[in-house]
Amino acid sequence: MTEHGGNIYAASQKTGIPQDKILDFSASINPCGVPRQASLLMKRHIKDLPHYPEPFSEQLSRYIGQCFGLDGESVICGNGSTELIYLIPRALKPRKVLIPMPTFSEYEKACSITGASLRITRYELKPENNFAIDPDDFIHAMGGKRKKRGIFTVSSRSCNMAFLCNPNNPTGQMLSKAKVMRIAAAAQKVRCYLVVDEAFIDYCPEDSVIREVRDNPYLIVIRSMTKFYALSGLRIGYGVFPRSIVDTIRQYKEPWTVNTLAQKAGIAVLGDKPYQKTSLKTMRQEKLFIEKSLMNAGIDFIPSRANFYLLRTKKAQGAIAALERKGILVRNCSNFIGLDDTYIRLAVRSKKENLILMKEIIKLCGR
Amino acid sequence: MTEHGGNIYAASQKTGIPQDKILDFSASINPCGVPRQASLLMKRHIKDLPHYPEPFSEQLSRYIGQCFGLDGESVICGNGSTELIYLIPRALKPRKVLIPMPTFSEYEKACSITGASLRITRYELKPENNFAIDPDDFIHAMGGKRKKRGIFTVSSRSCNMAFLCNPNNPTGQMLSKAKVMRIAAAAQKVRCYLVVDEAFIDYCPEDSVIREVRDNPYLIVIRSMTKFYALSGLRIGYGVFPRSIVDTIRQYKEPWTVNTLAQKAGIAVLGDKPYQKTSLKTMRQEKLFIEKSLMNAGIDFIPSRANFYLLRTKKAQGAIAALERKGILVRNCSNFIGLDDTYIRLAVRSKKENLILMKEIIKLCGR
Repeated sequence: MTEHGGNIYAASQKTGIPQDKILDFSASINPCGVPRQASLLMKRHIKDLPHYPEPFSEQLSRYIGQCFGLDGESVICGNGSTELIYLIPRALKPRKVLIPMPTFSEYEKACSITGASLRITRYELKPENNFAIDPDDFIHAMGGKRKKRGIFTVSSRSCNMAFLCNPNNPTGQMLSKAKVMRIAAAAQKVRCYLVVDEAFIDYCPEDSVIREVRDNPYLIVIRSMTKFYALSGLRIGYGVFPRSIVDTIRQYKEPWTVNTLAQKAGIAVLGDKPYQKTSLKTMRQEKLFIEKSLMNAGIDFIPSRANFYLLRTKKAQGAIAALERKGILVRNCSNFIGLDDTYIRLAVRSKKENLILMKEIIKLCGR
Repeated sequence: MTEHGGNIYAASQKTGIPQDKILDFSASINPCGVPRQASLLMKRHIKDLPHYPEPFSEQLSRYIGQCFGLDGESVICGNGSTELIYLIPRALKPRKVLIPMPTFSEYEKACSITGASLRITRYELKPENNFAIDPDDFIHAMGGKRKKRGIFTVSSRSCNMAFLCNPNNPTGQMLSKAKVMRIAAAAQKVRCYLVVDEAFIDYCPEDSVIREVRDNPYLIVIRSMTKFYALSGLRIGYGVFPRSIVDTIRQYKEPWTVNTLAQKAGIAVLGDKPYQKTSLKTMRQEKLFIEKSLMNAGIDFIPSRANFYLLRTKKAQGAIAALERKGILVRNCSNFIGLDDTYIRLAVRSKKENLILMKEIIKLCGR
């Protein structure tokens, strides 16, 4: 079982600090909190909980479709995007899957329990390159070709599924829409399902390829609603699938996985323009503050398009332990395949919280 | 996709009657509504939803363990018991599974998507026998033996998984604890995992075998908290597993499937003795009223230990349609394998609602 960020329960138990006193920078959640409209709606619908939810979130799926100009039939909602990460390989049964490293660990876990015949190929991202993905290189890896001393040599067989977290977790690196589209076009050619996880794309929506699923039978986009809308505890995400495979996915989909309150809140937040606007503004300001603070202190970090930063410092493990003792949680990245114990991931939070974190981290890791 | 009961959304869309005006007897949910303590607790914890839930419901699992004198490590919570119904065959990969018919359709669906090599054997329950399970007969079926003209002949190979819904959905028939224990002992002998689904056993808890999981490495018990505690929309259930297989099950378990509110409510309702007492009393009274009403009207029904009744009437389809037009939903059982279009399942609801239903159904199906 890989440990993830955001486990305030375990941290509270370990440190003896009450859950509500913990400052959690280990999960990358919008600091603006639960959107007010969604909160009111949930309170109102608690009395309706004796009824089952819509089995396949039909109304929410239609609404998501409308938001993106897509057919609601191509949208499948899940118990967080995690459900979809597990559902996709289970339903499509790929033989060989390409997964970048480092990236979100659940892709590999989901694939590894799908069946003994599934092979995982790790696509290594290089620290000297800030873990950026080179589209041509990724395309070659997808096609089963390997760059060898500057010459592309064809390997046994191509992949039939590839995961791409964009922006990537935990690096924050993002591929532009044009680059993802190039990879998606190549994926179609080699008949490889490209699963683009856009869990953190809400901060740069212009680079989403969600609308392009219509025109590419090998492109799948998954989205989380728990991060940008601060609803991690509620569990809600969705995927957009090409018409050619959506029925296969549905065959494997379990009913009632999205609870009634999540379905109601999902519709409310997608239409909550003021919350979206405030969130984007807050994030822009706070990211500037954090970047400036880290740079001034000489702390090395990867440029990020998401609401978190990956720090690289020899003092990481000591800092993580010292912060934890003060009730400040950050993400220890040593269990990410492709990283080591010199990496810390920090979420961007509210002004007040970021001030506390920066003060402490500069003391611990600054030059 | 098999249609289930409780879809008030589809019914509302079909009839044009608002969701909150529909009387739903098609899902078997406690008419006492959301327990008050749980409701208050959920309202209080909405502000905590930015945090992830405990990934594997650790606190709730420990609490469930305590309630039954079991090790919390043997408890796995799920997104309703449905998650566990899918998780069990996926993790244990049985070759041959015994499933009674008629019963809850998700067992067969869960098995059928697990793998092409899985064979399902249906164990036919007889209407002339009120669909009762004969333990010896079931044991023989589990062992791969078949009763043939009074002589037991051994068939190819024994089953390695069997499902037993007790009380059975949709019949309401229950096996006593002694009988289930006899089946479980036989299951251990033939190394067949016996999955006892006790989703409706809260009305006769003395017949539960949940504590017996400790002593039988082939016995698995799953429980729902959505029916007795009227929390279907929230999604919460659990399973109790022998220590020998709990780690295998965990390997296949997806993280964060039980939302924060469900975890909080789960603990609250298990300790809510007044709610439990009122619910049992209400149900006893209302079941007597329904049985008397049906008997007086000469409507045939199967004796039930659960909070629902299976009715057998040639007028079923006409009655279902007529009731639906009035906004009264009952469960059309024609899509249960092993039943036909003469069966209706009715949930037992509140005094006021039951009066309305009985009046209508007697008009439509009475002699």
